[in-house]
Amino acid sequence: MAQPSPAAAFRALHQGRASGDPLVLPGPWDAASARVFEDAGFPALATPSAGVSASLGYEDGSTPAEEMFAAVARIVRSVSIPVSADVEGGYGLAPKELVARLLETGAVGCNLEDSAEGVLKDPARHADWLAEVRAEAGDALFINARVDTYLRGVPELDAAIARARAYVAAGADGVYPFGAPPEHLPKIAAAVPVPVNMAVLPDAPGPRRLGELGAGRITFGPGLQIRATQAVRDIARQVREL
Amino acid sequence: MAQPSPAAAFRALHQGRASGDPLVLPGPWDAASARVFEDAGFPALATPSAGVSASLGYEDGSTPAEEMFAAVARIVRSVSIPVSADVEGGYGLAPKELVARLLETGAVGCNLEDSAEGVLKDPARHADWLAEVRAEAGDALFINARVDTYLRGVPELDAAIARARAYVAAGADGVYPFGAPPEHLPKIAAAVPVPVNMAVLPDAPGPRRLGELGAGRITFGPGLQIRATQAVRDIARQVREL
Repeated sequence: MAQPSPAAAFRALHQGRASGDPLVLPGPWDAASARVFEDAGFPALATPSAGVSASLGYEDGSTPAEEMFAAVARIVRSVSIPVSADVEGGYGLAPKELVARLLETGAVGCNLEDSAEGVLKDPARHADWLAEVRAEAGDALFINARVDTYLRGVPELDAAIARARAYVAAGADGVYPFGAPPEHLPKIAAAVPVPVNMAVLPDAPGPRRLGELGAGRITFGPGLQIRATQAVRDIARQVREL
Repeated sequence: MAQPSPAAAFRALHQGRASGDPLVLPGPWDAASARVFEDAGFPALATPSAGVSASLGYEDGSTPAEEMFAAVARIVRSVSIPVSADVEGGYGLAPKELVARLLETGAVGCNLEDSAEGVLKDPARHADWLAEVRAEAGDALFINARVDTYLRGVPELDAAIARARAYVAAGADGVYPFGAPPEHLPKIAAAVPVPVNMAVLPDAPGPRRLGELGAGRITFGPGLQIRATQAVRDIARQVREL
């Protein structure tokens, strides 16, 4: 028996999960945090662009592609579990180059978002672009298509479902309606045949409950890096008081 | 009045300090931690090679020069206070290139150690090398010469003092007898006319006491990054339990 490819192994982690048992992927921002999450027993990781950007010293959305890919490569190199990379809107790269750069990092998946500089992209054009990325990547990347309607001031369920369906038709392996209210989740999950990624956000349900509502995959956005930075603040204060 | 150069401002922070009030420099490992330490009110920072290496995914001593300089540059860029960089043994670079690379990062100082791969270097040859670094750097770098005798199995006070004096004669702005027992500190401090850097290590005196004993500058080795990683472990465990 041949070993499954890393991307196939990562895809398989999403499949056949019971309701209430979503795939939980913590988001490392550097090699040290990635190793901690691997050691804690998580089966895979998903880098958050905002967390990586904070560690590199950039505002979210302002990290040069070069530096983001290099940071992802350092994270991939430091662990033996699969890593998916949030590469925001793809940095304006053509699908062929984007896929090549992602595969160079060793990532087995990516988040790709459908807004840029705060503005939603045309969904049909974005779906076409996702289809090109899919064609370039073959099976080598799990493509998680972020749906930014809720984030960009379009809170209607229909809009999210229409985009999610278009991206799945274009070949997305998963959809990620960032900031969807929990009550929309069962309907989004019923509308697409792929895992729905939900982020655990402050004052929102936890992974188990989101899983019961239909989420197949749970991430944390920049949340864990923000918590870690709070811990560093505590350490800094303690050092000041020494 | 011209503004003092950043290196001059950093040098001045070491001067005229009362006993028991050493310069305390926390050690950031990435841009986010650097900003936290700046926000906490510290007047300057000193990167720890082990902490930066851990964040990049390398064992201490195995980080490629390229990646260490890039990490230091990210840290320098993220704060407005002076940053000194631990560049280990100088990565085999000629003094001219080492100084050029350090200045490119924006660092205003550096730690340079007198052992490599666990073995102490010949002190006279190391002093000559430090003198070359001094000549290349002019006033633009605060050179903190690490004395590794205690770390490398030579715990005699005389050996540490002989090396410290040789390095100061070669132009070092400070000396850093890593792991010196506190009872040696007053004698080392009395033997050299420059600030003595002491690391706060587990089960050792804190900054204030080390300052009373003669330390003019306090750093933490990789200690703060290790504590932050412990905090990430706690976060990972909490996420597992969600």
